[in-house]
Amino acid sequence: MSTNRQMILNFFMNSTGFHETAWRLPSAEPEGVTSLSLYKKMALIAEQAKFHTVFLADAYELGENVKHQALNRLEPYTLLSALAGVTERIGLVATVSTSYTEPYHTARLFASLDHLSGGRAGWNIVTTGIGKTHLNFGREQNYEHTERYQRALEFVQLATKLWDSWEDDALLFDKARGLYADVEHIHAVRHRSDIFAVEGPLNLPRPPQGYPVLAQAGSSEDGKELAARIGELIYTAQQTLADAQAFYADVKSRVEKYGRNPNEVKIVPGFSVIVGATESEAKEKEAELRESIIPELGLHRLSKRLKVDLFSYPLDGPVPELPDPATINENRSRFELMKNMIESEKLTIRQLIERVSGGNGHRTFAGTAEKVADELESWFTGGACDGFVIRPQALPSGLEDFARLVVPELQRRGLFHTEYRGTTLRENLGLARPNNQFSAQSQQRKGVQLA
Amino acid sequence: MSTNRQMILNFFMNSTGFHETAWRLPSAEPEGVTSLSLYKKMALIAEQAKFHTVFLADAYELGENVKHQALNRLEPYTLLSALAGVTERIGLVATVSTSYTEPYHTARLFASLDHLSGGRAGWNIVTTGIGKTHLNFGREQNYEHTERYQRALEFVQLATKLWDSWEDDALLFDKARGLYADVEHIHAVRHRSDIFAVEGPLNLPRPPQGYPVLAQAGSSEDGKELAARIGELIYTAQQTLADAQAFYADVKSRVEKYGRNPNEVKIVPGFSVIVGATESEAKEKEAELRESIIPELGLHRLSKRLKVDLFSYPLDGPVPELPDPATINENRSRFELMKNMIESEKLTIRQLIERVSGGNGHRTFAGTAEKVADELESWFTGGACDGFVIRPQALPSGLEDFARLVVPELQRRGLFHTEYRGTTLRENLGLARPNNQFSAQSQQRKGVQLA
Ligand SMILES: Cc1cc2nc3c(=O)[nH]c(=O)nc-3n(C[C@H](O)[C@H](O)[C@H](O)COP(=O)(O)O)c2cc1C
Ligand SMILES: Cc1cc2nc3c(=O)[nH]c(=O)nc-3n(C[C@H](O)[C@H](O)[C@H](O)COP(=O)(O)O)c2cc1C
Repeated sequence: MSTNRQMILNFFMNSTGFHETAWRLPSAEPEGVTSLSLYKKMALIAEQAKFHTVFLADAYELGENVKHQALNRLEPYTLLSALAGVTERIGLVATVSTSYTEPYHTARLFASLDHLSGGRAGWNIVTTGIGKTHLNFGREQNYEHTERYQRALEFVQLATKLWDSWEDDALLFDKARGLYADVEHIHAVRHRSDIFAVEGPLNLPRPPQGYPVLAQAGSSEDGKELAARIGELIYTAQQTLADAQAFYADVKSRVEKYGRNPNEVKIVPGFSVIVGATESEAKEKEAELRESIIPELGLHRLSKRLKVDLFSYPLDGPVPELPDPATINENRSRFELMKNMIESEKLTIRQLIERVSGGNGHRTFAGTAEKVADELESWFTGGACDGFVIRPQALPSGLEDFARLVVPELQRRGLFHTEYRGTTLRENLGLARPNNQFSAQSQQRKGVQLA
Repeated sequence: MSTNRQMILNFFMNSTGFHETAWRLPSAEPEGVTSLSLYKKMALIAEQAKFHTVFLADAYELGENVKHQALNRLEPYTLLSALAGVTERIGLVATVSTSYTEPYHTARLFASLDHLSGGRAGWNIVTTGIGKTHLNFGREQNYEHTERYQRALEFVQLATKLWDSWEDDALLFDKARGLYADVEHIHAVRHRSDIFAVEGPLNLPRPPQGYPVLAQAGSSEDGKELAARIGELIYTAQQTLADAQAFYADVKSRVEKYGRNPNEVKIVPGFSVIVGATESEAKEKEAELRESIIPELGLHRLSKRLKVDLFSYPLDGPVPELPDPATINENRSRFELMKNMIESEKLTIRQLIERVSGGNGHRTFAGTAEKVADELESWFTGGACDGFVIRPQALPSGLEDFARLVVPELQRRGLFHTEYRGTTLRENLGLARPNNQFSAQSQQRKGVQLA
């Protein structure tokens, strides 16, 4: 095994791939969206290829595009739990929003997933920026951007208290003396603020990993600050090497500012990929996906994202002027990224649609395994990232291609592990198991009593 | 296969059994509480034995007894989803409270569990009567009894609207025309009341079963009314044949009052069982469990349940006078049951502890397979139930005993199926798949347009 720094690879899973209309390909299995077998097949391929994680995005609303666009997935807790039962080593990362769930439930569900997977759970902490989710939870409007991130920080801190509410030695299982648990080592959390009031303790022992791995994807100022304070796996969408390098340096320096070790924060940009056995096969696949595009869908999605009614402009004319990013409450960083891309590349509306249909703002790339590996290597060794979120444009075929062609090439170059190094996700990512904030206190208490 | 009416058997699962201190037995595996393997082993035994369901209780607080009492389980959605991946036919019933969860999340999680299990999900609808759960969700006190049941009814009705928000024919998967779903057959629910406001639609297609099977366990007046209106599988704790018969007749007649078919409501009392190969083996197992009792635990639990400080009375003296049931906001029916039992059997405190430690108010029984089968048969044929919730006093051993000894005896008598009759839980329970409330409306709309 190489002793060089190696990259982290996350498989971003959905039902039919990350190209907007990949579900129309002959190889796509859109009927599989609601059945475990499709996801199980993909998780096993990803595990066989030694991906560090399988990752599921999430949202609590239908959205507006289901006429032309595939549903992405089942619900993450249930789906990943089902996959926990049929996989052994791959990490299982679920997205859960801090704006529309309860800290007690969220802490508990992740604790349970971490227990039943033997320490393989990860939580992608999102604040739910887009859409009309609030209408499904009795709210007239969404929380404002800054407020969302304040809630998120407090939510996560509270969740860590709940996970720590059982010290690691709290379970005794002492049959002879009839002592199941040492209640001196189980603690109420007594959290009380204007936002949350939770008494605790949690009704599950501390997860095997201490906490699930904390993933985060905010790219705005607030988002990067949250990532720097509590994130361990940082998802991001970056179009160019230079932008990715700047983001990497920025987040790592913020991490240091909070007294954390920058090596304990792994930055993984998205990479929307098409792999071909030959260059021309890759181009054919790319063309096939381009032909699947439904312009109406692209116009609809982009009009929403960019806050401009693109339907009223000619498809082959330039993208009209966009609003000031400061006015955007939803996914502000993605908006800025697209705005920059449109301006620097002077895109027509049709070109913009083609450009984002495969990547939704993430870097897209089509090529042979060698070219894909070159691309990943240059970002990885060029100070732009610690690994990637692999978003196959077509699924399941694109995962099969990546696993069969690209992974061996990366391994040959010593850039990717050939075996999981540990059993927990933390071990595999090289992240320390966090200390328990209550154990420190009980040590102190004991010290005081002894003195 | 017999054409006689056959009983429904549900396996109530927890980590170490339903006797309060069964975790102390040599055969108990208390360390398994947080690991999938113990639950997987039991679910597979239960499925092999053709149990209709594996059922998990739940609560969102730790409770006060973990010093002496085992934790019961992992979190139900995650645990049952993991089991969905490794089982094929057994139903998966999770308890979820309508007082401390969001309708959108709950409807969605059950839809997802139903999809990934191929139509095997059930929901035990509870209102969370006991304890201090409210303190984990920012509330100073619990909802009052009547209010809890009002919320529960509205919650379930809203959930059915969310499940129905996708008509069964809404998914098109039409690759050629680029039509993924027929949005005319996907409906907002626009539910708005003083309690809940949910816009919908759900972001998952209608579950395979239409709705998960709706289980309910309320035994108070409010509880029985809810059961009669929406329940399909009714859990109950009954001590005597006469009480069980009265409950059965009562609930079935209420069901008719709401215009429902009483055959579509299955009543299944709890049965806390110890099975021995011989009568003396059963008695030995019973004695072993009695010896495991920790009086302090019993005193604590019963003082809470009965609202009397039993610690201040002699263990071998009579149970002191109990408060008026009308003053009980928590589990009122269980309180009444225990009060009746204490009065009719004139129990001392120690006897009461022994009496409830194995059953927590449910009927307890120890005997050979033949005696157990006799007992089940007499209730089943005597108009007291449609089946049972089997609560082995010790786990996993008590399940193994029941599966190996009692199930074949029941099958021999033609009282229990020898194979699952369908693939969904509804099919196996003999429950119809519910009609979609929106489909009826769209039919009407179409009719109007044609006219
Ligand atoms: C790889 C990746 C995955 C994401 N997954 C989700 C998701 O599942 N749900 C969600 O609401 N947002 C998701 N986001 C969006 C982010 O949570 C966040 O809203 C976005 O990056 C904008 O953050 P900002 O408001 O700080 O700019 C994801 C972002 C990235 C880069
Ligand atoms: C077999 C069975 C299982 C139950 N499981 C739960 C449970 O998991 N969680 C819960 O809060 N209550 C549970 N209960 C309690 C009932 O939901 C309900 O609170 C109780 O029967 C009292 O109802 P009442 O207030 O209508 O009298 C269960 C009851 C029975 C009989």
